[in-house]
Amino acid sequence: MERIRIGILGYGNLGRGAELACAANDDMELVAVFTRRDPATLSILTEGVPTVSVAELENWTDKIDVLILAGGSATDLPKQTPEAVRLFNVVDSFDTHANIPQHFAAVNAAAHEAGHIGVISVGWDPGMFSVARLYANAILPGGADYTFWGRGVSQGHSDAIRRIPGVADARQYTVPVPAAMEAVRAGENPQLTTREKHTRECFVVAEEGTDKAAIEEAIVTMPNYFADYDTTVTFISQEELDRDHAGIPHGGSVIRTGTTGEAGENTHVIEFSLKLDSNPEFTGSVLVACARAAHRLAERGETGCRTIFDIAPAMLSPQTPEELRAHML
Amino acid sequence: MERIRIGILGYGNLGRGAELACAANDDMELVAVFTRRDPATLSILTEGVPTVSVAELENWTDKIDVLILAGGSATDLPKQTPEAVRLFNVVDSFDTHANIPQHFAAVNAAAHEAGHIGVISVGWDPGMFSVARLYANAILPGGADYTFWGRGVSQGHSDAIRRIPGVADARQYTVPVPAAMEAVRAGENPQLTTREKHTRECFVVAEEGTDKAAIEEAIVTMPNYFADYDTTVTFISQEELDRDHAGIPHGGSVIRTGTTGEAGENTHVIEFSLKLDSNPEFTGSVLVACARAAHRLAERGETGCRTIFDIAPAMLSPQTPEELRAHML
Repeated sequence: MERIRIGILGYGNLGRGAELACAANDDMELVAVFTRRDPATLSILTEGVPTVSVAELENWTDKIDVLILAGGSATDLPKQTPEAVRLFNVVDSFDTHANIPQHFAAVNAAAHEAGHIGVISVGWDPGMFSVARLYANAILPGGADYTFWGRGVSQGHSDAIRRIPGVADARQYTVPVPAAMEAVRAGENPQLTTREKHTRECFVVAEEGTDKAAIEEAIVTMPNYFADYDTTVTFISQEELDRDHAGIPHGGSVIRTGTTGEAGENTHVIEFSLKLDSNPEFTGSVLVACARAAHRLAERGETGCRTIFDIAPAMLSPQTPEELRAHML
Repeated sequence: MERIRIGILGYGNLGRGAELACAANDDMELVAVFTRRDPATLSILTEGVPTVSVAELENWTDKIDVLILAGGSATDLPKQTPEAVRLFNVVDSFDTHANIPQHFAAVNAAAHEAGHIGVISVGWDPGMFSVARLYANAILPGGADYTFWGRGVSQGHSDAIRRIPGVADARQYTVPVPAAMEAVRAGENPQLTTREKHTRECFVVAEEGTDKAAIEEAIVTMPNYFADYDTTVTFISQEELDRDHAGIPHGGSVIRTGTTGEAGENTHVIEFSLKLDSNPEFTGSVLVACARAAHRLAERGETGCRTIFDIAPAMLSPQTPEELRAHML
């Protein structure tokens, strides 16, 4: 079997997650990790795989089938993905929902020009949650969608707390409200406010001598991030944070309820849920499955941008169509 | 908007479910229901739509875009689908898992010859459960799959009870064992026997004067159907059966658990679950969404057999790719 040659650009938690996923898939071969740091300072998990300066990317076009972009959505990917797709087939996890159309357009134009495939916005949301929403909506056109996130760590909310003066470190968990989920699962089709769907739990390490009450007030009143939620703040030591909150778990549920029948007398509940010990390792696993699809699309001579919506599920699997029909259908 | 012209062959519960789903989708138009019965005796829900003898099928080739085959998998579809795909693009819900490769081959050959598309084995299992299995396997290659069915009515098991001498009527529910589901959801990766996964609840109407103990014994010892399960038998009156067990609910969960990390230290649980008040109406809804995809594939000039694995999710949705990216990704 000729293996799919993978490069990874960026070596934070997500890049490391993609590296682990490459190792878990026999048809994949990691050939290089690219970094903006000094590559000599970067130590990766996979033995024998070089770390390379991002400035060298263009020298690797004939050695890599798909480049996985493991950067952030705020500043990295809007620039990186359209640039990189000029050189490689690429996959990214761009997750700023509101800017996806614009990102798609930029990647699509560059990908068509260069004759490559760019798969964008894969991971779990956007990604697996999106595809669950799509299937459920296509099957039950008359219905309502609900997405619950958590219990899991929100990096953005943790960062927002850390920017408050006097905060040494922080970890924020997004937590779905059980009663709201139960009402949805029961097909009650509730109208839920932001506050009714999720609560926010904050674990904060305060610098010595700071006013904890002021920090708590700054958190719970922070617009967009916390003001619209029931938020709890617990002050703990750095040791406790490091010991009890080192993981990056996440997950959630996409639920669609709808009715069928002559008078809508039959209710159906479709739920897709994830419980993830490691958000970046799971996202890295999705990126690698989609890299397989990107390679296959490119082998067929296709070009342009794709999302998970445009990719037949079989393209993600290492099994042949015959195997899938015989054993998984 | 030019609507997709749908025909339905067969008017049992499933055909009626597909009819209701056509009515729920603005881009669909039901143009005829075909039957092996005398069409004059068949009364359908949709006003103004003709009921037509199956012998007339070939006169409708220019009036129908996709024919939905609503027959059974045991004897109808193995013959009907390869025949009908010579005349129309078709969709079926063939659900005899072991015979899918053979059915695919027959439909594929006929569809290619005729220049049509045949989408087979759509519904919820095979169908939505299959696609959930595929995605989860592609993302977590090291893991274990679990499928739980129910609580729901098994038509096959109900029929098996009705064939026992002295039984006037019966309804059988397949019920997942909660403790087994919880162990799987907790990532415990248990090895489960048939008996540990599901129980079977039977509601039986006995003919007057029959030996109920003998009926119960015949049920619980029946090979394949009940002997390997913990089975409960409750005798009720026909009135109670008609009043309390008239629905055809079903559902279940597909769960995959797997690990990532340097030493498999992070566990992930992916679950897709359905809770359906009406099995045939939900299956009919999937058939209609797949009819949309069949029409689009045919419009592109594609031919041959497809399963849900081969169809990009966006093809199932009435929304445009732009709308999907903007609002559902």
